[in-house]
Amino acid sequence: MNRFLRLSVGILLSLLSYQSLAKDITVGSDAELKKAIAQAKAGDNIVLKDGTYRDIQIEFFAEGTKEKPIVLRAQTPGNVFIEGQSNLQLGGSYLVVQDLHFRNGYTPSKALIRFKIDDDKIAFHSKVTNIVIEEFTQADREVTDQWIQFWGQHNELSHSYIAGKSNFGPTVMVMLKGNQHVNNHHQIINNHFGPRPRKGGPHGETMQIGDSSTSMTPSYTNVENNYFERCNGEVEIISSKSNFNSFKNNVFFESEGSLVLRHGNYATIDGNVFIGDGESKFYGGIRVINTGHWVTNNYFYKLKGEEFRAPIAVMNGIPKAPMNRYNQVTDAVVAYNTWIDSPTPWYFSVGYNVDNSDVLPKSEIRSARPVRTIFANNLIYNAETAHKPIFNYDKVDGITFKNNISNHENKSEVTSDGLTKQAFSMTKVSDYLYVPTENQSDVYHGFDFAKIKTDLFGNPRSDNNSVGATVNPVPDNASLIDTANYGTSWFTAKQPISQATTHKVATTAELMSKLKVAASGDVIELTAANYSVDQALSVDKEITLVSANKANKSTLNFSSNKTAFLMLPKGNLTLDSVIIKGNQQQHGFATLDKNMSKAYNLTLKNAEVRDFDAVLSVSKGSFADAITVEDSLIQNNQHGFLLNQETNDKGDYNAEFVTIRNTTFKQIAGTIVDFHRGGYDESTIGGVLTFSGNTVSDSGKSSADNILIKNRGIVNVELSNNQFINNPVKLIAILWGEKGQKPVNNEIKNSGKVEIVQNLKLKLMY
Amino acid sequence: MNRFLRLSVGILLSLLSYQSLAKDITVGSDAELKKAIAQAKAGDNIVLKDGTYRDIQIEFFAEGTKEKPIVLRAQTPGNVFIEGQSNLQLGGSYLVVQDLHFRNGYTPSKALIRFKIDDDKIAFHSKVTNIVIEEFTQADREVTDQWIQFWGQHNELSHSYIAGKSNFGPTVMVMLKGNQHVNNHHQIINNHFGPRPRKGGPHGETMQIGDSSTSMTPSYTNVENNYFERCNGEVEIISSKSNFNSFKNNVFFESEGSLVLRHGNYATIDGNVFIGDGESKFYGGIRVINTGHWVTNNYFYKLKGEEFRAPIAVMNGIPKAPMNRYNQVTDAVVAYNTWIDSPTPWYFSVGYNVDNSDVLPKSEIRSARPVRTIFANNLIYNAETAHKPIFNYDKVDGITFKNNISNHENKSEVTSDGLTKQAFSMTKVSDYLYVPTENQSDVYHGFDFAKIKTDLFGNPRSDNNSVGATVNPVPDNASLIDTANYGTSWFTAKQPISQATTHKVATTAELMSKLKVAASGDVIELTAANYSVDQALSVDKEITLVSANKANKSTLNFSSNKTAFLMLPKGNLTLDSVIIKGNQQQHGFATLDKNMSKAYNLTLKNAEVRDFDAVLSVSKGSFADAITVEDSLIQNNQHGFLLNQETNDKGDYNAEFVTIRNTTFKQIAGTIVDFHRGGYDESTIGGVLTFSGNTVSDSGKSSADNILIKNRGIVNVELSNNQFINNPVKLIAILWGEKGQKPVNNEIKNSGKVEIVQNLKLKLMY
Repeated sequence: MNRFLRLSVGILLSLLSYQSLAKDITVGSDAELKKAIAQAKAGDNIVLKDGTYRDIQIEFFAEGTKEKPIVLRAQTPGNVFIEGQSNLQLGGSYLVVQDLHFRNGYTPSKALIRFKIDDDKIAFHSKVTNIVIEEFTQADREVTDQWIQFWGQHNELSHSYIAGKSNFGPTVMVMLKGNQHVNNHHQIINNHFGPRPRKGGPHGETMQIGDSSTSMTPSYTNVENNYFERCNGEVEIISSKSNFNSFKNNVFFESEGSLVLRHGNYATIDGNVFIGDGESKFYGGIRVINTGHWVTNNYFYKLKGEEFRAPIAVMNGIPKAPMNRYNQVTDAVVAYNTWIDSPTPWYFSVGYNVDNSDVLPKSEIRSARPVRTIFANNLIYNAETAHKPIFNYDKVDGITFKNNISNHENKSEVTSDGLTKQAFSMTKVSDYLYVPTENQSDVYHGFDFAKIKTDLFGNPRSDNNSVGATVNPVPDNASLIDTANYGTSWFTAKQPISQATTHKVATTAELMSKLKVAASGDVIELTAANYSVDQALSVDKEITLVSANKANKSTLNFSSNKTAFLMLPKGNLTLDSVIIKGNQQQHGFATLDKNMSKAYNLTLKNAEVRDFDAVLSVSKGSFADAITVEDSLIQNNQHGFLLNQETNDKGDYNAEFVTIRNTTFKQIAGTIVDFHRGGYDESTIGGVLTFSGNTVSDSGKSSADNILIKNRGIVNVELSNNQFINNPVKLIAILWGEKGQKPVNNEIKNSGKVEIVQNLKLKLMY
Repeated sequence: MNRFLRLSVGILLSLLSYQSLAKDITVGSDAELKKAIAQAKAGDNIVLKDGTYRDIQIEFFAEGTKEKPIVLRAQTPGNVFIEGQSNLQLGGSYLVVQDLHFRNGYTPSKALIRFKIDDDKIAFHSKVTNIVIEEFTQADREVTDQWIQFWGQHNELSHSYIAGKSNFGPTVMVMLKGNQHVNNHHQIINNHFGPRPRKGGPHGETMQIGDSSTSMTPSYTNVENNYFERCNGEVEIISSKSNFNSFKNNVFFESEGSLVLRHGNYATIDGNVFIGDGESKFYGGIRVINTGHWVTNNYFYKLKGEEFRAPIAVMNGIPKAPMNRYNQVTDAVVAYNTWIDSPTPWYFSVGYNVDNSDVLPKSEIRSARPVRTIFANNLIYNAETAHKPIFNYDKVDGITFKNNISNHENKSEVTSDGLTKQAFSMTKVSDYLYVPTENQSDVYHGFDFAKIKTDLFGNPRSDNNSVGATVNPVPDNASLIDTANYGTSWFTAKQPISQATTHKVATTAELMSKLKVAASGDVIELTAANYSVDQALSVDKEITLVSANKANKSTLNFSSNKTAFLMLPKGNLTLDSVIIKGNQQQHGFATLDKNMSKAYNLTLKNAEVRDFDAVLSVSKGSFADAITVEDSLIQNNQHGFLLNQETNDKGDYNAEFVTIRNTTFKQIAGTIVDFHRGGYDESTIGGVLTFSGNTVSDSGKSSADNILIKNRGIVNVELSNNQFINNPVKLIAILWGEKGQKPVNNEIKNSGKVEIVQNLKLKLMY
């Protein structure tokens, strides 16, 4: 028998012996599943019959082996649905769960999938793969949970599609407390993290590895080859809070946040791709805090983020920082990265706040500049003129620049021989991917740089080295986003319907009926002049109400004491050229009192809202992604837009974008807008209020605080080109100077004034 | 040619080729050495001719290879002396320095031996071996230096004898700031760390690995097989301040301090030996702070230390501690250790100071108890009854006890099924070494305990396991202190002379002459009744002055205005049954004004000290190890004992032990004792004042503070069995209640009172 034959026979024999022991156990109920798990032996396959399982809480405790794992899987991938109040816990060794689809429900516990049953039943060497979790989110956004909670060691989440978490808590969390959970070497690979909506407050990370108490803990979690698509939960898409984690070859596509090295040290961030749109300031890159990180071979495209959301933000630390705050950046290496069409890619001393010493305690002042940090062999290319590659909030005296090149002159405040203008051209290879036409081979050899062996595509740097993330020749098929890499083999996320139906309604009954049956995205056209409505109209999908004749708007007269339009989770209502009228008792728009599990949207275009109590009244825990009012008239209401229920000072707020333009406010008794965000927090966009081109008159007479517009704690406020005429208030608004807020070109007549407070004293959250 | 022959010829050839390239370059001067270094090639030996080299500052920069290091060595080990203002710096790779003897001098820089020349010339893979550093200490104790300063990676200090550092600064320091210095894998092995005297303030560590800013830095320094003999510098013999350090098989012999895991995590402390004398409370063991340490196979003998110096002290942490303070203990494993004749080996929540909230800021309050920590398979044996194995300052709710045994019942406040009384007997194997006569094989198998593969002597635990540090059978020749393991091959530390000479002196001239020529340890016997001295008598060695007739004491009359006895570094003076008299202008005893490089001692027995300005006046930076006064008369002096010059509030003080017993103080105008220690510090014994059985009268009338005894900041104070009669003061003393100070059995007549302050407000040092 020759060697090949011997080997083959050996494999065959071992396969046979494996087959002879392994069993397929098909189960169709909770009870059968429990029994199968209880009896499972190494090598067994537990097969869930196709169908929907509601309110099922699986404790998968078993002991497989490396060669003979125990598998729990769907009969047909994608045909087993887990719904209702369900969850899954794993404990033991060498377990595999695959092919399940979680939807229409939420976990009754703190974790949907947990690699631990209890402290004596922890999972090791186990994986969850090829699953889908789709909007399996708590009914109440304020309830905290996590979808995948890692414990133990050597566990894996792979090839899964996970999207739509809108409540408190990171989507994926790695727990590190306890020797069983450190040095975990978990693999989070080849997943597609689909859209996570804006949360309007902290704790909306897509992934968090450890917490502020594990900054000294070795983790070795590997996050590789994942696709983060529009993960907009908060400023941290990934929050790394432990040591020796690795982030490789992930794609961050139009995601409103950054990969943040929040706590912990010695991360490897290699070969990742960050894609923006050249416009939004919310898409971030990498934020560096702490010690010893290596940021190499990353590719940044069309990013315009600033400060915390800069393409690369190197922060200032707090001297002798408390465990849960910001350590100084030391010994970081940022080398061989490429920035394309990102005019100001490098931000230094981000978070500098020495100016705020009057409102912050000493233990919060970030005055420790980065030191012993090197930026080398990086490439910056901008098609349009860009003379400010560096933005610095503090002196830059601890960064060494070596052999970085840009195609424009550096006219930043900080200059260095280590960042020079070079004439080089770029070649487009595929979508988003540009590489230098020729290698820029004058590279710097820093300490341990030899360990940067390859480029973004795995090309060796030993022969043809080049500044930037890529070395020529790049592979023929080089592509930044290879969708085959990410997610399951069997699931494709739904695309929004592109074809909307228009329903014409001439009577109230028709209106009510069509509102119920219309598909999300549909339009309801009002053909009559008047409609009389004696109940609340609930909106739980995308609906546009539009008058057939925009010049002669239809009127909806609301006669009951109930809210006119009740906004439900995912409700997205546009009133286009419509008049709504109340009886002074009810609100124009309101949210559910609780269980606002997801965000809603409200748009008024060329509309009129009159004779209501409040125009908009919301509940705590509710969140509007956007409230947009344009070319409208808001008249004779007791209150305007009240987005002021998140008062627990934890950084949450009730809406992200509030845009009011070219609109007339008349005879509003109280405040016309009350938009509140409390607590010192830096995790979010922080709210955006645009109030521009409006006319406000005869309003505010019964505002308790003698103020027309309340915007306390909102980070982004524009107040421009408005007219305030004859409003009996002391103040129009108080703006926050530190955030660059200032009134622009407003006409104020007999209406008090705009005040500016430079530093706002906010309650510390920790 | 058979395989063996081939191999041998191969070795021979490679040796020949090595020899043919390697050169011996013999040098005899600084200039020759410089030249030799500049020209050194891999494989070269630079040989320093026998002799003494003064004021030589060596920069050994060269590039050896693993196979061909470059060696700098003595012609004859032990016959090359480095003296004066000298130092040694290494830079490059694969260097060896060996066989040198540093003495009679000090470094003019911050480090005597430094593994770095400058930031571009750092040493890697280099070692210093078989050297001696003997009291190569700064003239001024307040000048800071370090004797061996590690930089770079893979360097070694081995087989060396290092003793007698008495100034500020750790003896051995490992520097970790910068990527070139992390993951260093330095080896500190087989050294003999001889006596380091008490420092009387912080910064007297024998070894420090990192600092408070490197608590997150991987170090991997290995400290193995070293002998720490009477390393008394401060409370931390070794201060580990980085991650993944390893301490193995070291012996700590009667050393006043502990191996302290001060900052950093995941240390391995395995197979170390701590030997006390069953009496001193200053000999410590291991102090645990932070996360993930494994303390295994250690052997503790006759330790009576408490609190910070407990045989094992598990501390409380500060919640969200600042970087330079105390983190909570989590995930520590203390397993398979043995404690012999150490009645209370386990101290929990050491450093608990919630009671001090009135004098300390919140960021200093250690309220976070240890959690997720396991004590398992430990053995406690006490020949005498010992019912309190556990001392707890706080609730013990985060420690799991499993399979620990003691030969006495546990009547501590904390009890557990995991610590039980067992009847077992012990067998003496060799000096200090006792092992259970039979294995105690009921052991607990905790998470990852399988990695504790061997016992204290390297015996496997797989076959015959046992609770405690040893598994039977122990090797026949098992010994805890194998002196052949430690220090150089050529040097033996001097032993004090055991045979003292007595010199009789009848005249002042003879007295002066003998004082000069006497050897340290000698006795000078005063045969005349009176001696008239018109100059200061300097004492730089151990000398006893004794009256020939103790019942009829001799008198030394000091007539000049200079101090009677001037104490020099290492001066150790005993006056036995002698009277010294001044002229009210000069001091009885004083130190040098500066350059008190080492400690001095002063003993008065049955002596009289009268008619001086101050009895004792010291300089800042001076330090007395012990001031002892017994059965003496102190009369008619302006001031008593003034040990009050360390006023910079950094935790330093002027004497360790001040003992005054059965002595009469009369007509002392100012304070009779002023013993000061300023600043909040926990690194030292903190001073010991024993004032017992004395009579004090007619004193204190011109004390500025209206107080007889000043002892501010001194940690250990005994005030007992004294009589205070007719002293015109408000206070006798202010005692520090928190430290257990209280007056005992004193008679107070017309002399004010003793006040107790519970918590002393001291200046924070950091």
